[in-house]
Amino acid sequence: MVDSVVIVSGGMDSVTLLHYLVKQERRNPAVITFIYGQKHQKEVALAQAQAQLAGCGQHLVLDLALLRPLFAHSALVDAATAVPLMQDVQGDPQPATYVPNRNMIFLALAAAYAETNGVGDIFYGAQRHDMYGYWDTTPQFLAALNEVYGLNRKTAVHIHAPFVQHSKADILRLGFELGVDYGQTWSCYEGQELACGRCPTCAERLQAFAEVGVADPIAYVSRDA
Amino acid sequence: MVDSVVIVSGGMDSVTLLHYLVKQERRNPAVITFIYGQKHQKEVALAQAQAQLAGCGQHLVLDLALLRPLFAHSALVDAATAVPLMQDVQGDPQPATYVPNRNMIFLALAAAYAETNGVGDIFYGAQRHDMYGYWDTTPQFLAALNEVYGLNRKTAVHIHAPFVQHSKADILRLGFELGVDYGQTWSCYEGQELACGRCPTCAERLQAFAEVGVADPIAYVSRDA
Repeated sequence: MVDSVVIVSGGMDSVTLLHYLVKQERRNPAVITFIYGQKHQKEVALAQAQAQLAGCGQHLVLDLALLRPLFAHSALVDAATAVPLMQDVQGDPQPATYVPNRNMIFLALAAAYAETNGVGDIFYGAQRHDMYGYWDTTPQFLAALNEVYGLNRKTAVHIHAPFVQHSKADILRLGFELGVDYGQTWSCYEGQELACGRCPTCAERLQAFAEVGVADPIAYVSRDA
Repeated sequence: MVDSVVIVSGGMDSVTLLHYLVKQERRNPAVITFIYGQKHQKEVALAQAQAQLAGCGQHLVLDLALLRPLFAHSALVDAATAVPLMQDVQGDPQPATYVPNRNMIFLALAAAYAETNGVGDIFYGAQRHDMYGYWDTTPQFLAALNEVYGLNRKTAVHIHAPFVQHSKADILRLGFELGVDYGQTWSCYEGQELACGRCPTCAERLQAFAEVGVADPIAYVSRDA
């Protein structure tokens, strides 16, 4: 019996969240994953593999590729907009990697899915690093959004982000305890065969593995950025 | 130059809102309309006709029919769930005609569209009657949601519902002043050739026309409910 909904992209944060919910919190979440025209759509297959590994019987992959016009200028979607390097985004409150209102959209769809399943708890993998550039990953965002969802009259919808104050290194440490296979995750914003090692999410991921003192099991073009 | 986004379904409230924005407020909105598996999808062609009548050059019709699993039990979407009569929904805080989280989803998509167009003002046609059954049409909902959108760091996104305290009769009176052609609108939740005259939205529409003392120009199966 499904008791919650979790948004899983296939990246290290949401994959860790999935296994944390199942193994540590003993939840039975329905998994939801979104295709939205992202260059790194290969993450979706890894979300599917991880949902299977976690033993989740219900996984909805929503193909929203037709929403691309809404995200036209984002570096994560637009072929003509290059994915920036880590140093290009530091200090930018809303860098080119921002996807307009993506988290509101994903959470709104997850909430509809939760309501239709008769459950109210929704989980997503917001973490501390993303706060530099994304307004929709912060504790303030979460608190304000839960004020809205608190108005629902039948289903007590609540958005949870258990890692919102975690660093990526914190998340990795937890994931290793839980036996998460990070070889079966994808972070790089570029959708190439190998991770670039230089985009903001690669840089943060590599930094986190270095901090924990473990080698990242996935292959990179370069790790010297 | 587009200066806002307006959600238009093809019903009398949002169509009046569209013409109010263009003729009275001198706005130049981009129009957005959603297909989501609604039985009364014929409203979409009327939204398109009205956007043309209003002289709006930018109209995005998003076909989200694949979202139907999210709305599985709603009487507006599910073939196996009958559209209730007006008397069945009175006093029900969330009747069968509720579509799970629909307004959050539509507003979130409209906000992404607004951001991508570099504008922040979003309009939707919430009005007073719907408050009986829909948590996502109330002034409280609007205020709480604007607290969330106020956190956006680059685009000052703000959701407006100028009719939120209007009755349907108020909306009709305004629409007649603006010359709105209500023969080119559709409200009935059933998607048949003629409006049923008995579902909650037909009942409210007929009541509003009666209150204003004008005959509704559209044809009904029955007006005696």
